[in-house]
Amino acid sequence: MAQYQAPLRDMRFVLYELLDAGRALAELPGCEEATPDLVGAVLEEAGRIAEEVLFPLNRSGDEEGCRLEDGQVSTPRGFREAYRLFCEGGWPGIGADPDYGGQGLPTLVEFQVHEMWSAANVAFSLYPVLTAGAYRAIRAHADEALRRRFLPPMVEGRWSGTMCLTEAHCGTDLGLLRTRAVPAGDGGYRITGTKIFITGGDQDLTENIVHLVLARLPDAPEGVRGISLFLVPKRKVREDGSLGEANGVSPGAIEHKMGIRGAATCVMNFDDAEGYLVGPPNKGLACMFTMMNLERLAIGMQGLGLGEVAYQSAAAYARERLQGRFMGGPRDPDRPADPIVVHPDVRRMLLTARAYNEGNRALCAWAALAIDQAERHPDPAVREAADDLVALLTPIIKAFVSDCGFEVCNLGLQVFGGHGYIREHGMEQLVRDARIAQIYEGTNGIQALDLVRRKLFLHDGRLPGRFFAPVEAFVREAHGRAGMGEFVVPLEDALRRLRAVTAWLQEEGPQRPEELGAAATDYLRMFGLTALAYLWARAAAVALERLDGPERPFYEGKLAVARFYMQRLLPQVHALEAAVRAGGATLMALPDEAF
Amino acid sequence: MAQYQAPLRDMRFVLYELLDAGRALAELPGCEEATPDLVGAVLEEAGRIAEEVLFPLNRSGDEEGCRLEDGQVSTPRGFREAYRLFCEGGWPGIGADPDYGGQGLPTLVEFQVHEMWSAANVAFSLYPVLTAGAYRAIRAHADEALRRRFLPPMVEGRWSGTMCLTEAHCGTDLGLLRTRAVPAGDGGYRITGTKIFITGGDQDLTENIVHLVLARLPDAPEGVRGISLFLVPKRKVREDGSLGEANGVSPGAIEHKMGIRGAATCVMNFDDAEGYLVGPPNKGLACMFTMMNLERLAIGMQGLGLGEVAYQSAAAYARERLQGRFMGGPRDPDRPADPIVVHPDVRRMLLTARAYNEGNRALCAWAALAIDQAERHPDPAVREAADDLVALLTPIIKAFVSDCGFEVCNLGLQVFGGHGYIREHGMEQLVRDARIAQIYEGTNGIQALDLVRRKLFLHDGRLPGRFFAPVEAFVREAHGRAGMGEFVVPLEDALRRLRAVTAWLQEEGPQRPEELGAAATDYLRMFGLTALAYLWARAAAVALERLDGPERPFYEGKLAVARFYMQRLLPQVHALEAAVRAGGATLMALPDEAF
Repeated sequence: MAQYQAPLRDMRFVLYELLDAGRALAELPGCEEATPDLVGAVLEEAGRIAEEVLFPLNRSGDEEGCRLEDGQVSTPRGFREAYRLFCEGGWPGIGADPDYGGQGLPTLVEFQVHEMWSAANVAFSLYPVLTAGAYRAIRAHADEALRRRFLPPMVEGRWSGTMCLTEAHCGTDLGLLRTRAVPAGDGGYRITGTKIFITGGDQDLTENIVHLVLARLPDAPEGVRGISLFLVPKRKVREDGSLGEANGVSPGAIEHKMGIRGAATCVMNFDDAEGYLVGPPNKGLACMFTMMNLERLAIGMQGLGLGEVAYQSAAAYARERLQGRFMGGPRDPDRPADPIVVHPDVRRMLLTARAYNEGNRALCAWAALAIDQAERHPDPAVREAADDLVALLTPIIKAFVSDCGFEVCNLGLQVFGGHGYIREHGMEQLVRDARIAQIYEGTNGIQALDLVRRKLFLHDGRLPGRFFAPVEAFVREAHGRAGMGEFVVPLEDALRRLRAVTAWLQEEGPQRPEELGAAATDYLRMFGLTALAYLWARAAAVALERLDGPERPFYEGKLAVARFYMQRLLPQVHALEAAVRAGGATLMALPDEAF
Repeated sequence: MAQYQAPLRDMRFVLYELLDAGRALAELPGCEEATPDLVGAVLEEAGRIAEEVLFPLNRSGDEEGCRLEDGQVSTPRGFREAYRLFCEGGWPGIGADPDYGGQGLPTLVEFQVHEMWSAANVAFSLYPVLTAGAYRAIRAHADEALRRRFLPPMVEGRWSGTMCLTEAHCGTDLGLLRTRAVPAGDGGYRITGTKIFITGGDQDLTENIVHLVLARLPDAPEGVRGISLFLVPKRKVREDGSLGEANGVSPGAIEHKMGIRGAATCVMNFDDAEGYLVGPPNKGLACMFTMMNLERLAIGMQGLGLGEVAYQSAAAYARERLQGRFMGGPRDPDRPADPIVVHPDVRRMLLTARAYNEGNRALCAWAALAIDQAERHPDPAVREAADDLVALLTPIIKAFVSDCGFEVCNLGLQVFGGHGYIREHGMEQLVRDARIAQIYEGTNGIQALDLVRRKLFLHDGRLPGRFFAPVEAFVREAHGRAGMGEFVVPLEDALRRLRAVTAWLQEEGPQRPEELGAAATDYLRMFGLTALAYLWARAAAVALERLDGPERPFYEGKLAVARFYMQRLLPQVHALEAAVRAGGATLMALPDEAF
């Protein structure tokens, strides 16, 4: 059976041993209260909710799915009660500004918590994570009156948020969208159009739903420069914040999906619905990106969370399932067979899962801490550097971590053998749930294009240096430390290759944009693998220093997984480098009609 | 929407241009009638059945699934009628011996046909493919009286076959199995026990079901040396072949699975059921392997078939879906956007699919032709060489081709973006259906162990040479041919690496078996990739010779995909070689309890 315990020990390792988050957060105004003790207590309580409230509803939610009846969506049995508990605990607002009723905890903490929600019940987690993203966009771009009216109930969880971009004929290419907004004469707007794939577009968890909708004003220029952002509530909201009558917003259908079946994915009809402009006219896409960027990182956390459940479940199964004998001779001759964890190929799968999960946990936390620094650090140079790093890492985390998550879930299923394919064991649900993360909020191919076409060239190409500089500093310093050679040498090799390819893309890209497209996916994976090599080498450095303490097995485990990563997974960069260097001609030669 | 047209042109290319099957089959007694004309007509008719009869039932079969009511399994609506047509066409017996009513077509043809059934409706295809496997085991190991009694109705499709190995506590490790057989005194046996995961264990398509069951005789030695094979019909069969009363065989439950939901996967209870010994006592596992080896190859074909549907569907979608502009400037300025097939990253996905599909089609056909040669060639040395090659390639085809199939189905889904995740488009079903192929009939990890522990050492280690010799001969010969350098050089590099790793494993394995286990999966993939490099280089050689003919675009396509394969996919062998060379210590260091 799938099983889950919140990985609190590894989170502490990442936050306080690897990233020195105690010191880093203490430097940030507004984060002073997020001491290790407080954060520890928050994570422990979140872990309890994840394990005891959300995880038990995961499989039943998948079996039951959502229903649309009489224009109202129902979530699976148990979701309403769980959501009520969730709100009572104050979880919807943990990262929100205290000015609007939030708890003001750092993004670093919010991300750890989000990993746990995703692991325990990714379908459930989508409702609050979209609310958190909508909160961010409204807070950043709406005027203060709108913020006062809409944010406090969202922070409480009484109202939820959604993100309405996609239309049937356009997902990636938003320049084509047709939803219209016309001024109503009272300062407001009337929105008309149909959006598809709207997660939480309707549900029975909250009193109201705040849709953030991309639409065109009557005089808008064509394409992406003519898109504006509107706040469109399900029920109208009076100026005093009380609920009014129904707005012209209704779910037209819900989708039957491969997974995340407890999350209602709706076709949403906006029919002359009252809405409010958020941000300047025709700047809607940029405003929406405040939400989108958070969601992209959250999706990385989904891959990570599901990968964690897959690993834990597979490891437990592998320790218990008796089948075959260890090749070097029976390990447990008194039993009819050895547990399958003795078999090298089973270990290969489990170690792959661990290497990706723990490496990606560090990668996501590194980015989360950089978000906190970018928002709060007193030194503008530090803020700028952190902001650059977040911009660089966002597509990598969204795509690389979700790819790893899918791979790890499949490895977990594989460890279960035939039992993994049977629904009741819960492993195949992880695979189905993880699959969407590679697609939504911009497919992973789009993330790769964002990395190579945009992020490599932003601010005169300075972003990659925000990654290379700390890695190089670490390599230089670590070379001299006893026992670090086996970690630093492969890291340095991967870094050298990544730098060379990066320089080549930055050089060639402006003249030959299709070369960027041809390199994108393989380059992004190369970047992700190198980032993990850096974080595993740092983890090894920490572990080497603490081997003689009371937690020796924990640190020996880190060293073993770090070695496995360097020797068996990192060599992928060689193949990826070759693929990137092969260039665009390998892709473009075949005429379109030959496909 | 998922769509499928039988890939008859590529099958002709593989059979008659790449493998010269016309000449090869003409040499084989009993295959003289399988002329290119006859085979072409058979494949065309099979393609029609696949497209028009089986494919339309694929999604409805998945949605509806199978039911167990009152001890009887019902297959999805339409399956009975389709099966009737299938039998009327003589398809169940196309590869069977004319002595038992079969059409005696070569295995090479049977495999092409099976690819089409798998593509169109893999759940449906499992019923006849298991019958074909059971036919082979009975024909090879049962006495003539049993054969006369049971084979003709199986060849007609009136009766089906199953394969009953797994029990709840043992799948891979059959030495643990507990099902018992006791002599009944009349020359027959009584079988008692419970088997799980029995595909087609019950259904409503056939008059009777012939179960092949592994069980232990009362005096049997422990472990795999004490397993015997029994034929246990659902309904008893009188000596004249007429149906008698119900036997003690009943489905206890059907599984709810991730995919192949139109195939009934049953828990089967045998309760003092009458059965017949097949083959010698205690040699049941070896006899069952006659069936298992065929099923393993058939599973490779499943991955291939599903990958073909995924490719065709994704290619059609990519040519139609308008989204974004080509990076080198708009391709179609009069339309609102370009079709997504212009984007390099979409092409990367489509070309990956094609390179694996077409390469694997050639690989599977090569093995199928070798089966025909092993069974029929007049020269015993040719028979032996062919038999060795089949033994070597069987685990590679089962694992590598099913892994590629799953990857390709996921790429196909990805090309559809969010629409791929929605059930109605049919792409996510391909992913779910393809996933089982990596698990059943021995997980792909078990295939890899079969390759490194058994096949590398069989007959004093001569098997790998059956692959290396023709590849080396080809390389030597092709080096001198104009235009072949870009294909032969990477092939030669991969071959050199594979040979070196093979020699290392053959040298080290006997002393350090856990090294074999540690290398297994990565080594198998390295082997599969190198085999495809060989077949793509051969395809390129054929294409170069025929470029000036009327089908120039077809051959240009072959060259473009061959180049893509060599430059962008084959470099994986570098990473795999590094992983294999890293050795077992990277996997074995962590203590069992640390997982």
